[in-house]
Amino acid sequence: MEHVRLMENDNLDTFFNPKSVAIIGATKNPDKAGQVIFKNFANNKKRGIFKGKIYPVNPREVTILGFKCYSRITEIPEELELVVIVVPARVVPQIMEDAVAKRVKTAIIITAGFREIGEKDLEKQVVSIAKKAGIRILGPNCLGVYYSKTGVDTLFLPETKVLTTGDEIIATPRPMFGEIAIVTQSGAFGIAALDYLAGRQIGISKFVSFGNKSDVTETEVIHYLLSDKETKVILLYVEDIKHGRRFLEIAKAVTLKKPIVALKSGKSIAGARAAASHTGAIAGSDKVYDTVFKQTGVFRAKDMEEFFDAGKALSMQPPALGKNIGILTDAGGPGIMAVDECESKGLVVNHFSDETLNKFQELKNQKVLPKFAATSNPVDLTGSVTDEMYEVAVDLMFQDPEIHGIILLGLHHLPALKEKYIDGVARISGRYKKPIVMCDIGETEMALYTRFRFDKLGIPAYPSPEDAARAMNALVQYGQFLIKNSYEKEYLSNFF
Amino acid sequence: MEHVRLMENDNLDTFFNPKSVAIIGATKNPDKAGQVIFKNFANNKKRGIFKGKIYPVNPREVTILGFKCYSRITEIPEELELVVIVVPARVVPQIMEDAVAKRVKTAIIITAGFREIGEKDLEKQVVSIAKKAGIRILGPNCLGVYYSKTGVDTLFLPETKVLTTGDEIIATPRPMFGEIAIVTQSGAFGIAALDYLAGRQIGISKFVSFGNKSDVTETEVIHYLLSDKETKVILLYVEDIKHGRRFLEIAKAVTLKKPIVALKSGKSIAGARAAASHTGAIAGSDKVYDTVFKQTGVFRAKDMEEFFDAGKALSMQPPALGKNIGILTDAGGPGIMAVDECESKGLVVNHFSDETLNKFQELKNQKVLPKFAATSNPVDLTGSVTDEMYEVAVDLMFQDPEIHGIILLGLHHLPALKEKYIDGVARISGRYKKPIVMCDIGETEMALYTRFRFDKLGIPAYPSPEDAARAMNALVQYGQFLIKNSYEKEYLSNFF
Repeated sequence: MEHVRLMENDNLDTFFNPKSVAIIGATKNPDKAGQVIFKNFANNKKRGIFKGKIYPVNPREVTILGFKCYSRITEIPEELELVVIVVPARVVPQIMEDAVAKRVKTAIIITAGFREIGEKDLEKQVVSIAKKAGIRILGPNCLGVYYSKTGVDTLFLPETKVLTTGDEIIATPRPMFGEIAIVTQSGAFGIAALDYLAGRQIGISKFVSFGNKSDVTETEVIHYLLSDKETKVILLYVEDIKHGRRFLEIAKAVTLKKPIVALKSGKSIAGARAAASHTGAIAGSDKVYDTVFKQTGVFRAKDMEEFFDAGKALSMQPPALGKNIGILTDAGGPGIMAVDECESKGLVVNHFSDETLNKFQELKNQKVLPKFAATSNPVDLTGSVTDEMYEVAVDLMFQDPEIHGIILLGLHHLPALKEKYIDGVARISGRYKKPIVMCDIGETEMALYTRFRFDKLGIPAYPSPEDAARAMNALVQYGQFLIKNSYEKEYLSNFF
Repeated sequence: MEHVRLMENDNLDTFFNPKSVAIIGATKNPDKAGQVIFKNFANNKKRGIFKGKIYPVNPREVTILGFKCYSRITEIPEELELVVIVVPARVVPQIMEDAVAKRVKTAIIITAGFREIGEKDLEKQVVSIAKKAGIRILGPNCLGVYYSKTGVDTLFLPETKVLTTGDEIIATPRPMFGEIAIVTQSGAFGIAALDYLAGRQIGISKFVSFGNKSDVTETEVIHYLLSDKETKVILLYVEDIKHGRRFLEIAKAVTLKKPIVALKSGKSIAGARAAASHTGAIAGSDKVYDTVFKQTGVFRAKDMEEFFDAGKALSMQPPALGKNIGILTDAGGPGIMAVDECESKGLVVNHFSDETLNKFQELKNQKVLPKFAATSNPVDLTGSVTDEMYEVAVDLMFQDPEIHGIILLGLHHLPALKEKYIDGVARISGRYKKPIVMCDIGETEMALYTRFRFDKLGIPAYPSPEDAARAMNALVQYGQFLIKNSYEKEYLSNFF
C-alpha cells in the first residue's frame, strides 16, 4: 500500500504554485466576484507573497488596479499556467478553447450554473475541451484554492464587509498558516470552516473547494495532500464520493500516513434530495459510506463540531494505542459526563491497576492529594485541588501502561487552582507517547485563557466534557486503525 | 394534574428571600469559603441589594468586614431565618442544635464530608435534629443558592482570581438576571453553567445547587419553581432522582406550565460508579430515567451543549405544534446538515405544498428570488442572497400551515447579504405563533454579531446547523407533549 501509483494528480501542484495566473472576469465593480478574486491576487502580489505574474482578463477594461488588462488570454504574451474563470456559464466553453490554445495547465471554474442546475451537457462540453490539452479543472461551482504561502486566493468572499451603518466588520477571515487541510465539496461550508478556524486560532495548510468535481475529485486532492509535508491532517467535507474504488485505495494509503476526518452529509433521505439539488450529488446509501470510511481508516464525524474537534485533536496529539481512558478531574459531575460519553463511543474507563491505586494511596497518605479524593478512575481531586495536584496525578496516570489516553478536566473555578499547572501538564505530557486532551467549561475570561493556553502548548482543549471525550475517541479510532494495519510504530516515529 | 397539592415545599421561599442570614464559619482568611460567602452577602448588603440582616458567626473573631461577629447563633439577639454552614462536618450537628434552639427556618450546608464519603450516619443525625424544628436543609456538599434580585449568594467561588502573574481575571462570573433557573446536584457543574451562561449573555432567574439532598430534593425545588413567575424554563442536572413517584407527579405538573430540560449523567456503568463516589447517588437503570422523562414531558439532553441549547430555545420561542420543519438557507451544505440532523431526531423536512411552491415560483418569476434558488424544502437562496430575500422567503414559509417550525441558516459570508435582514426576520416572526431558530457558522466578528443580534431579538442563534436542528427538536418534543396532554392552547396563551 505504501507506493500507491501516482496517476493523474501529478499536475495538481499548479493549482497551489502557479508561476502565472489569469483572472477571467476580473472587473472594477467592487460587488463582483471577479473584482474580489483579482484584488486578492493583486494585494498578495504587492505584499510580495504571490511571486508569479497576474493578468486581469476583461474585454471592456484597459487596466484593473494598475494591471494591464487583456481581452482574451490568447493575447497574453507570456506563458500562462493557471486560469481562474468567473464569467457566466455559457461563455465558459469558449474560454476553455482559448485556454487550450494558450496551453494552460490548470483551470479553476468558480462559475455556477452547470450540472447542479441540470446543465450536464454544458459541463461535459467544457471538460471535453479541457481534456484535449490535458488541462485539469477544479469546479465548476466552487470556491477554488486558498494557500497562504504562495498567495493563491480565489475566494470571492471579501475579508471585510461594510454594514448598512457604515461600519467595516470582519466577515470572511483567512486563518493563519497551520497543519490542517480543508477539502470541501460545499463552498459555503468551506468558507464557514475558515471563519470557524480563524476564530479558534487553528491554522490551515491548504484550502480546496472542488464543487461539482467535473474533473479533479476529492480522491485526487487527498492523494496530492499525501505527499504534502505541510499537511498533517485532512478535513474532508463531501456530499457524495466519485469513483468509490479509487477512493478506497487512495484514502487508505493516505490514512496510513496522516489522518482524514470526513463530514459526509446527505445521510437522510431528505438530506440526499437536498444534496442532489446542491452540487448534483447522488448520495447513495449512507451505510455504504460508513463501510468505506471504516475500511479506509477515515474518521467519520457525526456533525460539524465533531469534525473540527477531531481534526484539532489529530493534528496536535498522537493516536491512542488502546481504548482504556484515564480521566482526571476536579469536578465530579463533569467527570461523570466524560465517562458516559467515552463508554457510549465504545471506549472504556477501567478501574486502575493495584499498582496505580497504591501509588495514589501513598500520595494521599503523604497529604499530597486530598484525603477524600477519588483515586480510581476517574480521579477526582475535589474542591481542594491545587496546580501541584494536577501535575502529580497526571504524571502517575501517564506512567500506568494500561492507560492509553488521558482526559483532563480542569475546571478553573475552584479557589486554589491557578494557571501554573497548564505549563506543568504540557511539560509532563511531552515525556510520554500517549495522547491527552482537556476540557474547561465556561465562556468568560479564565475559561478562554485556560483553553487557549492548553491549545498553544499542543494539548487540545474543549468547552465541554463530551467534546473532549469525542476528541479522544477520534484518537482511539485512529490508533485502532493503525494497529490493525501494523502501522503504529512507523506512524509514531513521525510524531516524536 | 393542575392543582398538585403543595406539600413540604411551602417554606422553601426563605432560601431565596431571607429576612436575616447567619454565615457560620465566616472568617477573615481570604482563601476560605467562609470568607467568600460572607463577603458576597456583605457586598450585596452595602450595595443595597440584600435588604435583610447579616451575621458572621465565628468564636475567634470580633468583627468581620465591619460586621459584629457572634460566637454562636444563639447569641444573635434578633430573629434568624437562614443559616449558611461552612464549618467542618463533625461540628455540623452541634450547629444544627443551635439552629433548632434559635428557631431558624432554613439551613444551607455547604460543608462536604457526609454521605458522599460514606458518612451516612452523620448526615442522618444532622437531618433528624433539623426535623425536630421543621428546619429545611439544602445540601450538604452543595453550593446553595444564587438569586441576584435579593442578593442571596452562597457561592464560595470568587468572581475573580489573581493569577501567579499578579493579573486579576474573571473566574466565576454571575450571569445577569433572566428567565432560566439552574437546579443542579453537582456544584462544580452548576458553577460551570453560570460561567457558560454569563459568557453567552443568557440570564438566570435562580440558581440552586442541592448536593447530597439530605432533605430538600430536586422535586421540591422544581415544585417551588412551578409558581415562580420569574422562571420560564428549568435546567436540571441530576445524577439520580429521589422519590421517583413524587417526581413523576410534580415534574408533569411543572412541564404543563413551563419546560424542564434535564441532563442526567451516570448513564454508563462506569459513569454510575463515578456518580456513587461523587454525591452518593445510586443511579439505577438509565432506561428507567428515559421513561420517567418521557412520561413527564421533561426534555432529556444528550450532552452539555444540547442542555444549554435546548434551554435557550425553550426560553425564547413557543413550542412547535408539529414535526414538519421548514429550512431556509443561503448555503447548500449547511442546509443538508440541518436536514440530516432533523431527520435523525425524528423530525420531518417535507416537500412544500403546491400552494407554497407556486408562491415561490412567482417570486422567482418576478426576480425577487434568484432563478436558480431551490424552493422546495430546504429553500436555498444561493450565493446571490440579499437581506430582502430572507424576509420574503421566511414570511412565505411562516404562512404555510403545514410548516410547524423554521430553521434559518444565515451564513453571513455571501457578499450581498448585510445585517438588515436580522431585524426584518425578527419583526416578521413576531406575527406568527410558530418557532424559529437560526444558525450562522463562524467565530469571528460578523458571525458573533449576527448570533448575538438574533439572540437579543428573541430568535435563538446557534453556531452549527446541527445545534440549531437539535434546538428545534426540543421545541417539537415539548410541543408534542403539550398536544398529547391537550394543553397547547393554554400554554401558548401564556406565550403571546
